[in-house]
Amino acid sequence: MDQVKTTAASADGRDQVFAALAERFQDRFTRSEAVRRQHGHTTTSIANQPPEAVVFARSTQEVSEIVRICASQNVPVIPFGTGSSLEGHLNAPFGGVSIDLSGLDQIVAVNVEDQDCTVGAGVTRKTLNAHLRDTGLFFPVDPGADASIGGMTGTRASGTNAVRYGTMKDNVLGLTVVLADGEIIKTGGRARKSSTGYDLTRLFVGSEGTLGIVTEITLKLHGIPEEIAAGVCPFDSIEGACQAVIATIQCGIPVARIELLDAPQVAACNAYSKLELTETPTLFIELHGTKAYVEEQAELFGAIASEYGGGDFSWSTRPEERTKLWQARHDAYWAAQALKPGWEVLSTDACVPISRLADCVTATAEDIVASNLLAPIVGHVGDGNFHLSLLVNPEDAGMVERGKALVSRIAHRAIEMGGTCSGEHGIGQGKLKYLEHEHGKGAVDLMRRIKMAIDPAGIMNPGKMPG
Amino acid sequence: MDQVKTTAASADGRDQVFAALAERFQDRFTRSEAVRRQHGHTTTSIANQPPEAVVFARSTQEVSEIVRICASQNVPVIPFGTGSSLEGHLNAPFGGVSIDLSGLDQIVAVNVEDQDCTVGAGVTRKTLNAHLRDTGLFFPVDPGADASIGGMTGTRASGTNAVRYGTMKDNVLGLTVVLADGEIIKTGGRARKSSTGYDLTRLFVGSEGTLGIVTEITLKLHGIPEEIAAGVCPFDSIEGACQAVIATIQCGIPVARIELLDAPQVAACNAYSKLELTETPTLFIELHGTKAYVEEQAELFGAIASEYGGGDFSWSTRPEERTKLWQARHDAYWAAQALKPGWEVLSTDACVPISRLADCVTATAEDIVASNLLAPIVGHVGDGNFHLSLLVNPEDAGMVERGKALVSRIAHRAIEMGGTCSGEHGIGQGKLKYLEHEHGKGAVDLMRRIKMAIDPAGIMNPGKMPG
Repeated sequence: MDQVKTTAASADGRDQVFAALAERFQDRFTRSEAVRRQHGHTTTSIANQPPEAVVFARSTQEVSEIVRICASQNVPVIPFGTGSSLEGHLNAPFGGVSIDLSGLDQIVAVNVEDQDCTVGAGVTRKTLNAHLRDTGLFFPVDPGADASIGGMTGTRASGTNAVRYGTMKDNVLGLTVVLADGEIIKTGGRARKSSTGYDLTRLFVGSEGTLGIVTEITLKLHGIPEEIAAGVCPFDSIEGACQAVIATIQCGIPVARIELLDAPQVAACNAYSKLELTETPTLFIELHGTKAYVEEQAELFGAIASEYGGGDFSWSTRPEERTKLWQARHDAYWAAQALKPGWEVLSTDACVPISRLADCVTATAEDIVASNLLAPIVGHVGDGNFHLSLLVNPEDAGMVERGKALVSRIAHRAIEMGGTCSGEHGIGQGKLKYLEHEHGKGAVDLMRRIKMAIDPAGIMNPGKMPG
Repeated sequence: MDQVKTTAASADGRDQVFAALAERFQDRFTRSEAVRRQHGHTTTSIANQPPEAVVFARSTQEVSEIVRICASQNVPVIPFGTGSSLEGHLNAPFGGVSIDLSGLDQIVAVNVEDQDCTVGAGVTRKTLNAHLRDTGLFFPVDPGADASIGGMTGTRASGTNAVRYGTMKDNVLGLTVVLADGEIIKTGGRARKSSTGYDLTRLFVGSEGTLGIVTEITLKLHGIPEEIAAGVCPFDSIEGACQAVIATIQCGIPVARIELLDAPQVAACNAYSKLELTETPTLFIELHGTKAYVEEQAELFGAIASEYGGGDFSWSTRPEERTKLWQARHDAYWAAQALKPGWEVLSTDACVPISRLADCVTATAEDIVASNLLAPIVGHVGDGNFHLSLLVNPEDAGMVERGKALVSRIAHRAIEMGGTCSGEHGIGQGKLKYLEHEHGKGAVDLMRRIKMAIDPAGIMNPGKMPG
């Protein structure tokens, strides 16, 4: 199989492109180092590889123009949302132009009866939900960071309540996409289902800007539930907590969130968020529904938990208590980091069939101890997805190496257990090396064939998928 | 844009292929006319175009062998499940070999804790559900016919309870696929979510055998609910029934099925299934959950219905009553046909954003009257999807023409309303002419580029998508 081409722009060609962009976009085009660095990878210890230039676009039409100009000289283009991705998606190993989409910030339409909306790629999930507040609807996908909807589409994002509402794969109805030659296409539509044509929408969701640039997204919305309850339940063991989750899902309790924190993570959250939780493996739960149904679900969950070594299940529907709990959960990363000020966090995630979750998390916890590392674990356990905030002292090269080796073993372990090397962070640069182990050579070759058919010059976010 | 190639096998090449297949597969290879005709399109008035030969395969490996032999001489291959597709998917306009997959009938694995299973493409949905009975799990996608899981994957099937449980797009976790050169690949996996790699799974789901042959499918399963209630509610008008559906979904009532029958369809069902329903637009509902929650949902729905001109909502959790009701719903097609013995049914479906459903169904009902045709309407109204059983006298060429023109107007009307020309029947031969109106030239060109990259010789079910 041929390898995917990477770009071969000449120095002259690049200069022509930068000059053309500067003329067309004036002060919305920059080659300043600070802006370029900010548009490379900044969130984890993956080295920053800044683009050669940044353009701030405001419309699909402008993105198309930029791509046409870059394509004329085979100059790479890299879409940028808010910069919150974790695996080096935004780096520019072959140079090129970062297209900042934060100016595509229009909420184009909200259709309350149809429970859908169309937004520009630069709209963030919090902005969207603030806009929706009076409609009785909300957009559920919540990766933690206030990411842009375009970026979330590109990385197939999910988060705490994917167990109930699905991931971006399940919540995107249609897209506007700028292709590698600047052509603008629409995929999908507003019908709730369709059996017509290849599923281009799902092909672009999760393609990390390597097949085209998503500029507009039509999303499913969901009704804000009448009642929301949140609660906490400590367990004797990770095994018991995982078994309780399996039983909960088998019983059909439609948990909106069900999150596992291991003992070190609970301790970190207690310290950081001023909680007083028992420092054992703990589940955080959220339940949505009518008042009566939420009560019934809570009772049912309490009974299941106590069967599997769960302690007291305390829950509340009071918004301030719920907010405090989920704020602590969302701050888990910062809580972990606060354990070792000045150290770096190697953030990683993996996902396995839920029957293997206890094995995988337990093996990982043992591996952390054996590696003499500190790495609190937190997981979207209803989906079999867990995260490590692996703390390393950047001055200690041995520790950094042990950390990287641990991340690699977690990826391979998850794949061996029938899972995936990333449930929600994506591939970027960081996980490219696991793609073939997970999907097999034949499938990755097919991805390459698709990439080459859609982006023959290899200018769309090169150096990333499919490798 | 280049057109997709169609095959160019020579007569000699074909003879070599048939001889090689006959030698390898012995009495599982046939060129008998009866078997060939049965493997072409048989379910609607689209003309039958039989393949030149049929091979009965028993494994992925055998499918790979067959495809390799056919590919060596550019002979087309067409996968066959149970023959229940409705848009001419199985026809062989360029000749070639039908690969009958009914022998891939193994239920390879059922993982109760993970609520998933892996099955051969030839397993039918009823066989699978019978097999699952003792596990407490079920597979929800139900297109009416006892279709094969492979065929349902190929057409992105859905049906009555997609409103709650999703379509095949949402319920397929992974696939084994034989590509156009005979290579076997795996896509997806058993993790509930993944953000690694292009979504090849969704690319094959709904690709109607034009990109590869799906031989094995890993499916999500769901817990059988503690309580199931079914009920019927007559309405003054289609408009009122549709408004009640919108309100039901906005209130977050997780209806498992919500089906609209127009007055002519109710009359047909009364006659055929010996029911005594009021002959006005009517909703059939099914509710899943705990006993208390089902009661609460039923009460809530009754209140909503009465706000929108609904009559008495009578419901029951007794299995025999539920079965009778849903049997009548599933027999709606036969009930329509029984109105005019000897006439043909032109079966069609379309899907629109739910806010446009009342408009679309009302306009269609008026169009039926203006066209002097008989065509009961029934719909998966929670998804905005509706079906016509359009009855035409095959001896009356004018009526047949009027029927076809009506089908075409429905497709275009649905697209104009932001919907799709097929919610669940697919494209096949019957709806190829609407593909570009619905998706636009740019998107269909992109589909062609993908098709040519994956099937460069054009041997996979040629004459179908993307055209």
